[in-house]
Amino acid sequence: MRVLGIDPGLRNMGWGVIEVDGPRLRHIANGIIHSEGSDLPARLSILFRGLAAIIASHAPTAAAVEQTFVNKDAVATLKLGQARGIALLAPAEAGLTVGEYAPNAVKKAVVGVGHAAKQQVEHMVRMQLPGVAIAGSDAADALAIAICHAHHLQGRRAIRVVA
Amino acid sequence: MRVLGIDPGLRNMGWGVIEVDGPRLRHIANGIIHSEGSDLPARLSILFRGLAAIIASHAPTAAAVEQTFVNKDAVATLKLGQARGIALLAPAEAGLTVGEYAPNAVKKAVVGVGHAAKQQVEHMVRMQLPGVAIAGSDAADALAIAICHAHHLQGRRAIRVVA
Repeated sequence: MRVLGIDPGLRNMGWGVIEVDGPRLRHIANGIIHSEGSDLPARLSILFRGLAAIIASHAPTAAAVEQTFVNKDAVATLKLGQARGIALLAPAEAGLTVGEYAPNAVKKAVVGVGHAAKQQVEHMVRMQLPGVAIAGSDAADALAIAICHAHHLQGRRAIRVVA
Repeated sequence: MRVLGIDPGLRNMGWGVIEVDGPRLRHIANGIIHSEGSDLPARLSILFRGLAAIIASHAPTAAAVEQTFVNKDAVATLKLGQARGIALLAPAEAGLTVGEYAPNAVKKAVVGVGHAAKQQVEHMVRMQLPGVAIAGSDAADALAIAICHAHHLQGRRAIRVVA
């Protein structure tokens, strides 16, 4: 099983791909897709094509996207929503089912507690993916989302074996 | 010139296509793409593919999307943002430039005043596109956005001729 994690953002879209072989995790690739400027449709195209290219070259079999933290700044929420729509669409268009996890669920899966600091998450990502070179904090978050989804899928599989 | 107008929404995405020949407008097609259920990525795919199919069959040469009214309900804003991301992406992926207009600008272009009621907008759309059968209020809004964009593009063209 190969899992793509995505941390959605309009300016910086973090992504990470891991290989899951039973309890073993292996890092495949990670990065950040940047988009800038005032032409919003063009920026969304950059994000969509970037994700499509990553899916084509790394061939994930599952995907997960972080649930967005809805804040009081409505304009920022709208921007994030637009980027998040692209983050959900790209894997769906590639035929992948897409899991969604709240930030606290991701932290709990990776660190063990839901209120972990950003640095703790990145530290645990490095521990679980030895030798990984991380492109930035958005890419670290994306790898954490992929790890969270791997745990979730394996939990479900274990339950199926028992049932 | 053929203009596609889109009124973005997650449940109901209104669309309308008009032909613009100098001062004359002609209705080509309009409709509403529905998406329902709990699988958000699948819903976004339905909207994206629906818009791509409309663009393929009606071959617009320009597109415009309504600017979203940002309200105090952050969850609703996020949902609308996700749908709006798709509404901007689909024409951009088809190589069209995409105009964006605030609801008041659309009303002003179609009715003459920025604070017009929904029924007034629909009435003026019917007046400007004789014989049109409108699929619903979201489709009427989409046709209004297309008319607004046509006025804007013709204004720009007139300015270019003068300059």
